[in-house]
Amino acid sequence: MNWLDDGALFNQISAFLSEDLGRGDITTQATVTRNSRARGRFLAKEPLVVAGLEAAEAVFGALDSQQQLEAFVSDGDEVEAGKVIARANGFADVLLSGERVALNLLQRLSGIATLTRQFVRAIEGTGAQIVDTRKTTPGLRMLVKYAVQAGGGRNHRFGLDDGVLIKDNHIALAGGVGAAVERAKREVGHLHKIEVEVSTDKDLREAVSSGADILLLDNLTPEETARFVGLARELSTNVLLESSGGIRLENVRAYAEAGVDLISVGALTHSARAMDISFKIQAGS
Amino acid sequence: MNWLDDGALFNQISAFLSEDLGRGDITTQATVTRNSRARGRFLAKEPLVVAGLEAAEAVFGALDSQQQLEAFVSDGDEVEAGKVIARANGFADVLLSGERVALNLLQRLSGIATLTRQFVRAIEGTGAQIVDTRKTTPGLRMLVKYAVQAGGGRNHRFGLDDGVLIKDNHIALAGGVGAAVERAKREVGHLHKIEVEVSTDKDLREAVSSGADILLLDNLTPEETARFVGLARELSTNVLLESSGGIRLENVRAYAEAGVDLISVGALTHSARAMDISFKIQAGS
Amino acid sequence: MNWLDDGALFNQISAFLSEDLGRGDITTQATVTRNSRARGRFLAKEPLVVAGLEAAEAVFGALDSQQQLEAFVSDGDEVEAGKVIARANGFADVLLSGERVALNLLQRLSGIATLTRQFVRAIEGTGAQIVDTRKTTPGLRMLVKYAVQAGGGRNHRFGLDDGVLIKDNHIALAGGVGAAVERAKREVGHLHKIEVEVSTDKDLREAVSSGADILLLDNLTPEETARFVGLARELSTNVLLESSGGIRLENVRAYAEAGVDLISVGALTHSARAMDISFKIQAGS
Amino acid sequence: MNWLDDGALFNQISAFLSEDLGRGDITTQATVTRNSRARGRFLAKEPLVVAGLEAAEAVFGALDSQQQLEAFVSDGDEVEAGKVIARANGFADVLLSGERVALNLLQRLSGIATLTRQFVRAIEGTGAQIVDTRKTTPGLRMLVKYAVQAGGGRNHRFGLDDGVLIKDNHIALAGGVGAAVERAKREVGHLHKIEVEVSTDKDLREAVSSGADILLLDNLTPEETARFVGLARELSTNVLLESSGGIRLENVRAYAEAGVDLISVGALTHSARAMDISFKIQAGS
Amino acid sequence: MNWLDDGALFNQISAFLSEDLGRGDITTQATVTRNSRARGRFLAKEPLVVAGLEAAEAVFGALDSQQQLEAFVSDGDEVEAGKVIARANGFADVLLSGERVALNLLQRLSGIATLTRQFVRAIEGTGAQIVDTRKTTPGLRMLVKYAVQAGGGRNHRFGLDDGVLIKDNHIALAGGVGAAVERAKREVGHLHKIEVEVSTDKDLREAVSSGADILLLDNLTPEETARFVGLARELSTNVLLESSGGIRLENVRAYAEAGVDLISVGALTHSARAMDISFKIQAGS
Amino acid sequence: MNWLDDGALFNQISAFLSEDLGRGDITTQATVTRNSRARGRFLAKEPLVVAGLEAAEAVFGALDSQQQLEAFVSDGDEVEAGKVIARANGFADVLLSGERVALNLLQRLSGIATLTRQFVRAIEGTGAQIVDTRKTTPGLRMLVKYAVQAGGGRNHRFGLDDGVLIKDNHIALAGGVGAAVERAKREVGHLHKIEVEVSTDKDLREAVSSGADILLLDNLTPEETARFVGLARELSTNVLLESSGGIRLENVRAYAEAGVDLISVGALTHSARAMDISFKIQAGS
Repeated sequence: MNWLDDGALFNQISAFLSEDLGRGDITTQATVTRNSRARGRFLAKEPLVVAGLEAAEAVFGALDSQQQLEAFVSDGDEVEAGKVIARANGFADVLLSGERVALNLLQRLSGIATLTRQFVRAIEGTGAQIVDTRKTTPGLRMLVKYAVQAGGGRNHRFGLDDGVLIKDNHIALAGGVGAAVERAKREVGHLHKIEVEVSTDKDLREAVSSGADILLLDNLTPEETARFVGLARELSTNVLLESSGGIRLENVRAYAEAGVDLISVGALTHSARAMDISFKIQAGS
Repeated sequence: MNWLDDGALFNQISAFLSEDLGRGDITTQATVTRNSRARGRFLAKEPLVVAGLEAAEAVFGALDSQQQLEAFVSDGDEVEAGKVIARANGFADVLLSGERVALNLLQRLSGIATLTRQFVRAIEGTGAQIVDTRKTTPGLRMLVKYAVQAGGGRNHRFGLDDGVLIKDNHIALAGGVGAAVERAKREVGHLHKIEVEVSTDKDLREAVSSGADILLLDNLTPEETARFVGLARELSTNVLLESSGGIRLENVRAYAEAGVDLISVGALTHSARAMDISFKIQAGS
Repeated sequence: MNWLDDGALFNQISAFLSEDLGRGDITTQATVTRNSRARGRFLAKEPLVVAGLEAAEAVFGALDSQQQLEAFVSDGDEVEAGKVIARANGFADVLLSGERVALNLLQRLSGIATLTRQFVRAIEGTGAQIVDTRKTTPGLRMLVKYAVQAGGGRNHRFGLDDGVLIKDNHIALAGGVGAAVERAKREVGHLHKIEVEVSTDKDLREAVSSGADILLLDNLTPEETARFVGLARELSTNVLLESSGGIRLENVRAYAEAGVDLISVGALTHSARAMDISFKIQAGS
Repeated sequence: MNWLDDGALFNQISAFLSEDLGRGDITTQATVTRNSRARGRFLAKEPLVVAGLEAAEAVFGALDSQQQLEAFVSDGDEVEAGKVIARANGFADVLLSGERVALNLLQRLSGIATLTRQFVRAIEGTGAQIVDTRKTTPGLRMLVKYAVQAGGGRNHRFGLDDGVLIKDNHIALAGGVGAAVERAKREVGHLHKIEVEVSTDKDLREAVSSGADILLLDNLTPEETARFVGLARELSTNVLLESSGGIRLENVRAYAEAGVDLISVGALTHSARAMDISFKIQAGS
Repeated sequence: MNWLDDGALFNQISAFLSEDLGRGDITTQATVTRNSRARGRFLAKEPLVVAGLEAAEAVFGALDSQQQLEAFVSDGDEVEAGKVIARANGFADVLLSGERVALNLLQRLSGIATLTRQFVRAIEGTGAQIVDTRKTTPGLRMLVKYAVQAGGGRNHRFGLDDGVLIKDNHIALAGGVGAAVERAKREVGHLHKIEVEVSTDKDLREAVSSGADILLLDNLTPEETARFVGLARELSTNVLLESSGGIRLENVRAYAEAGVDLISVGALTHSARAMDISFKIQAGS
Repeated sequence: MNWLDDGALFNQISAFLSEDLGRGDITTQATVTRNSRARGRFLAKEPLVVAGLEAAEAVFGALDSQQQLEAFVSDGDEVEAGKVIARANGFADVLLSGERVALNLLQRLSGIATLTRQFVRAIEGTGAQIVDTRKTTPGLRMLVKYAVQAGGGRNHRFGLDDGVLIKDNHIALAGGVGAAVERAKREVGHLHKIEVEVSTDKDLREAVSSGADILLLDNLTPEETARFVGLARELSTNVLLESSGGIRLENVRAYAEAGVDLISVGALTHSARAMDISFKIQAGS
């Protein structure tokens, strides 16, 4: 896991466990003999791209610092239905009490990685790249963006401090594309590029002439997109182009073929369903 | 919002904002004049059941303690596409910086409420109730369970400390249904009922005779479910029955008609997609 | 220790140490040579039931992760005056700086366990059980409830979310016993039983007929209690009965013999005195 | 309340409420109509010295920032059985959900103030002062020391960083009273006085000649105490003397009359019982 | 204050106060009558550029939410010795207890703003800009960077996540300037520019041809700097140039005149001395 | 490190790292191969007194719990320019990501130790001692006071709760030196000495006669100081004297020779410049 350092991951996982455990797992405490041992296996019940193994291991590790996960695949791997993804031998109560949180993470992150992989496949061979958005579940951004990477996508901004993206709302309030870009270039640090949404030819010309580095083409058809790409390429050899809005598996290739560099897809993170993964426990070590 | 007191909600929302804002919204700071005012409107782009208005208001309130939301509907209301759900007049930078987090919450919670409402509708007129599970996004449990309520569903356990539910894994480790139920009755506080999974007639008889209060019928067909229900009703007049596993909109009514009291549906919270809601901002107050 | 996981205990103990140490133990720093070693022994100065060994060990462990406690008894054991309960060999400054917090915990928790044991003994042979209340020192609930267990008592609710107990104040506001019980059955999750206070025959009949699971008999004499028990048993074979209010070591057996199932005693946790335990340190390892 | 600033008190009270409320007060939510109003009264059920009114008010204030307490007495006042100490008009659910934590604080702190007052009374007219110790319930030190003040006692050290008190354990490890005092004078800041335990005439002479400011006489009889006091006064006109260990209401005056300046009493904070105070709620505003 | 939202500032100031106040301001509590009022004035004892008024106000506001500061100048203003910068009327204990923390902030931040202003003045009329570095006091970065802005400087990276700056150490480990730049362009998000240190002509050519956006010229003489600038301008019209290392007030203009765009000065934040500002309090309101 | 226990230091260092790393060190992640190893060396670029080695080690340790620092000197040692102070072998990304925070601490703390040593040297042979003040950078007090110790100075109060120092502002509000001292003696715990500022002969007499333990002579010339010292010594053999205000390396010896016991120097902590120390990394282990 790239950005999330171990300490931050541990703190986040501990909060997730605390949410689920409250004052303790009363069922397990009441029914399972303390210190008895068990084996658990994570099993893919459908084809999927794995993501979240480290997070799942951290769940058990937060309950018992000795508990590890033996993984048979790596994050980013595609597996078939029936594949045992990982297994854990340990204390029965640790496996039982951590099961739900571990599955909640593994199922969701694998869901995002799997959907991302489908989008990436759909545009293979074009020069475009699939990127995510900030449409992530509150509280899970780092993990979710990591799952997009595991699926083969790339990450757009991690937060509002992580890049300048001037959208329609900003433009309206700033008094036009050119004014907004110029203000941004003057105000933000010299290490930041400027991306701006353009919706008319005039906007596009203003954006390029005021020095925008990236143009966002939002909610256009592939045909309109292609026209804007052509116009932009005439005006600048450096400017990057990004499509967003209304992009689905069915039409993503058309956008890629329209010549944009980046295609951002909110659905990767706001509407991926959880993958069907089970965790089966049996007694013994 | 029922359980989440104001302070806890505020802290959670602040953490969500901090995740998105990091060191600050550099685009808005660079392009929008400080203290300029604006109006924003949340618009339903498809039919949906609303949930999360209080959470959305709390987002803006955390950025500016004066900022309120004028809601035109209540959580739990069904609205058509095109409906303006709520509006906010305030500082432009507050609206812009809070927009994404507010939408991320409102879209997800409304998605859960909407899907829940569909399940509730599907079993209308039967005596059964739709309940949720612990298959919630880590970190969002209270908000997600609130959305299920807004959709008309009821809540199962809030966490592992909130009730005794003895599942297959516990039974295997405890040495059978009867042994597990008896241990639980001895160990847990007198205010807790005991729910136990049963998968055979023998299990069911053991469960009832050892005093289980609720029986969980997991991953059965509606026909098998009906047979178990009949057998249980013969043995006890008080015992409650719950179906779970593999329940979809298409088959949920068959389970309800099989006579169970409760139907728990993981999909409500693990696979609802986000609803399409936009937030449009314009200058002025 | 059953519910308090290691991480939560560690955090709590660290807060206790921080309260006592502030910016550091200036006396020990000034008078004891760094890295010198010492031995300390916890000695019972009066007969008592031990509770809190793990908490005491955690105090020293929070100061020096290597520091352990060698215990000669277990929590729940009765010891005579003069008994060495446990000893610790380690750095002199760790033993000196942790001494007071470790004793504060061990003395209080043993006090609660000892008093609880007296109540449990007093009703031996009857079918009743001693349970605690929520009358615990703020901030210490989990530890205090653990001490009750060590003493042989059982735990009532851990908090207001942990069970439904409808008391006189609720009844007055809800408009009667029957109305309150019916509302509660409709509103709370299916895994919760309903306990309700009854103070008249009419209340008792209403409670049973509306489906209450447990009846609380508060501030009655043993004779009145016996009469209510008789009446309740006539009306229901399942209902549990709990006595509370004004129960002391002198009269607790009378309540038990009146036939109730549970006797809750606030004094266990609000008025137990600290046991006399000393910690004597000598140089050397 | 003197040292505990408002923010710190609020944080502490919030933690206490969170401990008791967990995910919410399910009984009140289920039985009491939201936004209904009620009146509650704190009633002394036995004679006592009041302490903790501000803390009790902060409990309700943390649940509803508008909620106040109308107090009819002040902390430190003695009241008779039957006295209404304070009342609160507000939302019924706020009063019900905060009742237990408010009582837990008020009963305990009043218990400490009441016991302290008895000790203070017992030595009236002598020149000695009653002081507390660090034998406080972990997590409550500031509140507990405040209650001692309300009772008329004075505070000894707030923590190990708050003064130099060289006890038998330190002396043993430092190699004698004189060595320990000299080290302390060299090491600690110039604003700290040095207190040291002395148990023999030789210790006492060493302590005075090495410049100790206060002498601790631990676990002596009143007669031995008087002899030490005499000896000390011969050697120094400035040195203060403190008695501690085994001091009870029955013998405290004898120590005071032995001529010490300070008498520290652990029982004030480790073994005071909670006072009997009730909180009665009725509907209406 | 631009990036630091009010909540974050409040939390930080509270931590600073807690560091200084510990268990409370015992001198003020002992010597000043509670609720007495006083007036305090911040007075510049030497010429300086003001920075930190909002932080100073937040100090008093954290002690008493009603306490405000009446400022007679704004952050960024230059004032002469003898100027009253701001005054506060309020509770005497609030002013006394907050004085030191408020001064510690105001003196340091004004020191940084003042030094920054001197550097900015020194290069007036050249096209270059003064920027800060990450050589800030741990824990104070946002406040310190704000003071640089108040002084007229611009901010370089706020942290290691806020931009790509490839230095000698990275280059050595990555295997050369070209390899490092190419890797960075491939790995980091499309909104980030790439800055790279160059120390030879070959480096510079590699950097430009691999697409670096900004070149860092570290520890060069003004003459060497001028030569590199010339070479870079030949190769690219867009590339920015930054000087750093060994830059002092005496030589900064020579670097600016060498033609670089940015001059980063570590001394702004690591070696500015505190300005002499006093806070004089008198009784009355 | 004396007062700062390991846990507190770890938490503080983690906060400092989090401030600098934000969501991660994107340059290192992009340019340096994961798990590659490197060696780094801290090199003194000017003569200095070392302070902060433990803090620097803790920085790397917080990133990789295995990472240690091999120190060639100890805190408090004087080193020449060119001296390698310490080295670290470890993961390249750990060294790169921790470098800046480690240097920021080591450079600042060594700066304070170095300046303190100069003051200590300047008064060698007199009986006076150099002490620090509370004029420390907010958030760094414990580390900064530690650096003063490393430089050979002694520590004045750690916070407002750590001693009574009655200054001009308190005196004005309390109604005179005598009144203030008497109140303080009555109010504060018996372990605290009383220090009071005196600016006239009358003040000095009042202070001594009311029992002040230490007299603060603020902003006097050495000559005035000598006169006050003489007067004080006549009146009391025990009273300590402290000079403060306007004390520089050039005049500090004159104050020491005036006969005071303590000389407090704000510049030690508010205006020491950072020492020039570099951290050079090369590949390999």
